[in-house]
Amino acid sequence: MSPEELAEQIAAGNVRAVARACRLVDDHAPEARELLRLLHPHSQAAWTIGVTGSPGAGKSTLVDRLIERFRAEKKRVGVVAVDPTSPFSGGAILGDRVRMQRHFEDAEVFIRSLATRGALGGLSRSAADVVGVLAAWGADVVLLETVGVGQDELEVTEVCDTTLVVVSPGLGDDVQALKAGILEVADVFAVNKADHAGADATVRDLEAMQALGDATLSAHDGHVRFRPAIVRTVATTNQGIEDLVRALEAHRDAALQHGEAKRQQRAATTLRRLITQALTERAFSELGTAVEEAERRIVEGTSDPYSECDALVRRLSIPRS
Amino acid sequence: MSPEELAEQIAAGNVRAVARACRLVDDHAPEARELLRLLHPHSQAAWTIGVTGSPGAGKSTLVDRLIERFRAEKKRVGVVAVDPTSPFSGGAILGDRVRMQRHFEDAEVFIRSLATRGALGGLSRSAADVVGVLAAWGADVVLLETVGVGQDELEVTEVCDTTLVVVSPGLGDDVQALKAGILEVADVFAVNKADHAGADATVRDLEAMQALGDATLSAHDGHVRFRPAIVRTVATTNQGIEDLVRALEAHRDAALQHGEAKRQQRAATTLRRLITQALTERAFSELGTAVEEAERRIVEGTSDPYSECDALVRRLSIPRS
Repeated sequence: MSPEELAEQIAAGNVRAVARACRLVDDHAPEARELLRLLHPHSQAAWTIGVTGSPGAGKSTLVDRLIERFRAEKKRVGVVAVDPTSPFSGGAILGDRVRMQRHFEDAEVFIRSLATRGALGGLSRSAADVVGVLAAWGADVVLLETVGVGQDELEVTEVCDTTLVVVSPGLGDDVQALKAGILEVADVFAVNKADHAGADATVRDLEAMQALGDATLSAHDGHVRFRPAIVRTVATTNQGIEDLVRALEAHRDAALQHGEAKRQQRAATTLRRLITQALTERAFSELGTAVEEAERRIVEGTSDPYSECDALVRRLSIPRS
Repeated sequence: MSPEELAEQIAAGNVRAVARACRLVDDHAPEARELLRLLHPHSQAAWTIGVTGSPGAGKSTLVDRLIERFRAEKKRVGVVAVDPTSPFSGGAILGDRVRMQRHFEDAEVFIRSLATRGALGGLSRSAADVVGVLAAWGADVVLLETVGVGQDELEVTEVCDTTLVVVSPGLGDDVQALKAGILEVADVFAVNKADHAGADATVRDLEAMQALGDATLSAHDGHVRFRPAIVRTVATTNQGIEDLVRALEAHRDAALQHGEAKRQQRAATTLRRLITQALTERAFSELGTAVEEAERRIVEGTSDPYSECDALVRRLSIPRS
């Protein structure tokens, strides 16, 4: 099937075409780029929500509840779930997602798992592209659930309209970890497992950090930032989900008014990512075994990485398409 | 001062030259690459130890104890401490490192802080190069302390001979987080704050994961892997530090026998990193404002990132040095 035919079928809502496109994109098949180019105009309407936070905070259960809630409104829902690929976990973490599988028989829900690119998490290189495929399929909402370890929090904000950070009491969401950046990426906080001891303390910590952040930010750039809502949830018993959805929607509506800057940012990120990928793929393919020969000289001690890099880059002809 | 003169002074042990070189490297000054090339032959003898783990596990205090311990043996010690650069933290995390400052007056200890490259951590791009500078200065041991959030754990193993993972009871080091990759990168575990409740449970969790890992690994590739030691420490009261150093040294000695593969891996990583950096820097500098023009078309909806990427890469002449 040509990329044109596949793109047409996806835009027409064909689920099997979507599954096929996800595979092509994840395998970096040669026709994937053309397909993504064709799908791009169709993928601009979906609301994309990133769900991140520490492992064990209850992200999968919360995503399951959000699917349920959006389906009650007859919305079409796409889910991209990023899984760690570790020889040790061996898919065990997937167990948390068993609950989500009850949606597999719903034709208006499409769930796709992706492996992380490294043992320690980080968003799969394909994640942004698969989100685009599900959006082009006509999903009203696409949920992107991360592993929650690694830099993927930062990448999620580049891919999604709204970023939900899930924290839970006493599970490594201590003040220091929050300081280290999570506050910057959150559009909405869910304090999940809110029935556990320590939930109040977690909410208080978040509020204190926000107050500090507000002060720092106004000192920095003088404008008022969207202040993330803090919502208490108990995903296992479906508590707080309505409040959570309202907070997410409030962010979406507020963000629409400032959407230009975010779309600009996202276009820039995607374009830079594609250019870097294209350049390095072509360069290493052109250099071939010369790279391994250079490595050998470095290991032998007859050369160093800096000289070898210069020599290799000089050898490159033109990385044209 | 020319890179040649600077390299000579560093190799002669001049601390001010080291400070200057660290600045040049961190600023990506034009002469930094030449300097690093000249220092490379001098930077191969140091023992590099990466120290990673969750925020709040006590990494800085443990590093402080390790400096003290190595100094008692008259070893020259370099420390690279990676700090998160967050508008919210504003350097507050540095407070943990106040203790370490007692070593600042010791001419045989050189401590350099580096900012992370993004709000959410990850090893600074300069970290590997600064480790090289301190090694060339003649440090017997270089300790690289990470922020402990993000993918930096994985990167640390690429830069360091020995990776120490610091965990502490009940601080987010739950089984799920461990599964997600930390076990793969650890050469030695320190269960710090071992006087706290839950330390036994943490040690048991680690042992259980190791047993599982052993089974998985032998099934996978049939050879026996170095099994990380698990050492209990209380850094604040200096307990367990001797045991920890012995475990680190045992790893170093064992690794020496299998060092070829690791050095090969590291040469490959460094070379690939340098090539990718060189290519993208040159490409974006050559493309200039054309990138922003392409972004504008994408945001306006008159084009898409895939077509623009192809057009831009086609425009590139030769990314020669």
